[in-house]
Amino acid sequence: MQKKSIIQKNSALKSESPIGIFDSGIGGLTVFKALRKLMPQENMIYFGDTAHLPYGSKSRASIIQFSVEIARFLCQQKIKALVVACNTSSAVALSAIKKAVSVPVEGVIVPGAQTCVRKGFRRIGVIGTEGTVRSGAYAAEIKKFSPGARVFEVACPLFVPLVEEGWWKYGVTQEVARIYLKPLQKARVDSLVLGCTHYPVIKPVISRVMGKDVSLIDSGEQTAQEFEKTLESLNLLRKRTGRGWSRFYVSDDPERFLRLSRRFLGSSILVKRVIKKNFE
Amino acid sequence: MQKKSIIQKNSALKSESPIGIFDSGIGGLTVFKALRKLMPQENMIYFGDTAHLPYGSKSRASIIQFSVEIARFLCQQKIKALVVACNTSSAVALSAIKKAVSVPVEGVIVPGAQTCVRKGFRRIGVIGTEGTVRSGAYAAEIKKFSPGARVFEVACPLFVPLVEEGWWKYGVTQEVARIYLKPLQKARVDSLVLGCTHYPVIKPVISRVMGKDVSLIDSGEQTAQEFEKTLESLNLLRKRTGRGWSRFYVSDDPERFLRLSRRFLGSSILVKRVIKKNFE
Repeated sequence: MQKKSIIQKNSALKSESPIGIFDSGIGGLTVFKALRKLMPQENMIYFGDTAHLPYGSKSRASIIQFSVEIARFLCQQKIKALVVACNTSSAVALSAIKKAVSVPVEGVIVPGAQTCVRKGFRRIGVIGTEGTVRSGAYAAEIKKFSPGARVFEVACPLFVPLVEEGWWKYGVTQEVARIYLKPLQKARVDSLVLGCTHYPVIKPVISRVMGKDVSLIDSGEQTAQEFEKTLESLNLLRKRTGRGWSRFYVSDDPERFLRLSRRFLGSSILVKRVIKKNFE
Repeated sequence: MQKKSIIQKNSALKSESPIGIFDSGIGGLTVFKALRKLMPQENMIYFGDTAHLPYGSKSRASIIQFSVEIARFLCQQKIKALVVACNTSSAVALSAIKKAVSVPVEGVIVPGAQTCVRKGFRRIGVIGTEGTVRSGAYAAEIKKFSPGARVFEVACPLFVPLVEEGWWKYGVTQEVARIYLKPLQKARVDSLVLGCTHYPVIKPVISRVMGKDVSLIDSGEQTAQEFEKTLESLNLLRKRTGRGWSRFYVSDDPERFLRLSRRFLGSSILVKRVIKKNFE
C-alpha cells in the first residue's frame, strides 16, 4: 500500500466513516469477525456477492469485473478503507481494485504470505480455491522475500460446500481433508496457509489431519492485524468508544446468507439485497 | 406444451434449424448426451451459464433473469426449439421462458414427474439442488396426476461439486450419498427421481446406497424422449441423415468447461465464451 500517496488522495476521508469489506459470499465473515474483535468501535459495511458465488471456479476476467463493481458500490457508501476478504479476488483483482477506487485497499494474500516469511517457514503449504491456486499469488508473494522457500499449493473445491452445509464435524469432512492434504503431508510442509476465508471454520479438522507440528496460518486474522496498523498510521481509526454498527449487503438471496451467517457469527444480523443494476 | 398455438406462432421454423439446450453449467451435458443418442441427425447449440453457476443456491428472481436472457440469446441463434436442461431453472423459470420466446420449450421436471405417474409409483423420492427442492415443483407435478402419491424431497448440494471434482468412484462420495439418502431409505420410497442433471454421473453410487428395489428415474433421459415426440408432432425433426453438428457456448471460463466436458462426454469439443453484455 502506497501510504503517502493515499493520504494525499484521501484527505477528505474521515475516521468516523465505515470500513468496507467484501467477499464472494459468506466466507469473508471470518475476516469480518476478526476485524470486529480487534476493532469493536469501527462501523462496518459487508458485501457478499452471492449472485456470483463461488468465485473460485470463475475466470480471471469475470472476477476482476465483479470485484471492481463491488468496490465502487462500497465507495458510494462513503467507506474510508476497503478489505478484500476473498482470497480469489485478492489473488487476481487487487491491482484493478486499487486503480478503480481512491481509498486504501487491503487484500488477504500479502498479510498471509508475509506471516510465513516473518516466521521463517521453509516448506509452506497453501490451500485455496481453484482460482487462487491457479494464480500462484501466495507463492509469488512468499518468494519475493524468501526466495529459497518451497511453496506447495493445492486446490480444495469441496471445502467450501462442506462448510456451507455445516458438516464441520462430520467424518466425511475429515475424509475429504485427508484426500486433499495427502500431497502436502508427503511434501513434509512445516506450515499451511488457509488461503480461503471459509477454511478457518474447519481449522480443527485440518489441524487433526496435518498434525501438531504443522503451523496453520489464518490469512484473515493476519489481514485484520495488518489493516488495523494501516488505519492507525493513516490516522483513520475511529476515536469514539462504544460498539460500531454493522451493515450487510448481498447481491442475491438474503435469507440464505442470513441462515448461514448464524453459523459463522453465532448471532443474528440484518441483510439487505442490492439488485445488480443498482450497484453498477 | 400448447402444440397448436406453437405451430401457428412458428410457421417459419425449419426442421433444418438447430435445437437449443441450456444449463447453469456442465450438468446439462447428460441431457445433451441423451438427446444426441436419440437424435444423432440434429444440429444442437448448448449454452452453459458458467458465470452464474451453480443456480441451486441462487434466488428465484435471479434464476428467472439468467434463464430468460439465455433463452433469448439462443433464439437469436435461430433455434427451432429449446430444452431447459437444468432442473432448478425448469422448476422456477419455465413459464417466464415460455412467455419470453416463441419456440417450443421443454423443461426436465414434467417428463421426470410424468414417468413416476405412468409407472404407478406411490412413495417417490426426489433429490436435487436447494432451489429445485425449495420450489416443490416435482411434488406439485406428480400430485396433479397422482394425488395419493407421497413425495419426499431432499436437497443434496454436495453432489454437484463431487461430480465436478471427478470423485465418482471415491468412498467419500458413497459416504455423502449415505448421509443425504438416509431419510429417503427411512421413508421406504419405491422410486427416486435424479432431479439434477449432474446426478446421472453418480447413478451407480446412488443405486448402491438405495438398493435394487428402488427404481431410479433419470429426468434428462425422459426429457429427451418426450422432446423427440414433440419435434415429431410439430414436423420439426431434421430430415437429412448423417450426424448433425454441435456448438457450445459458455458465459465464463471455456477452458474449465472443456476440461470437465471430457469427463461427461468422453470426447473433446470446441467451446466459445460469450461475454454477458453481448447476449443481453
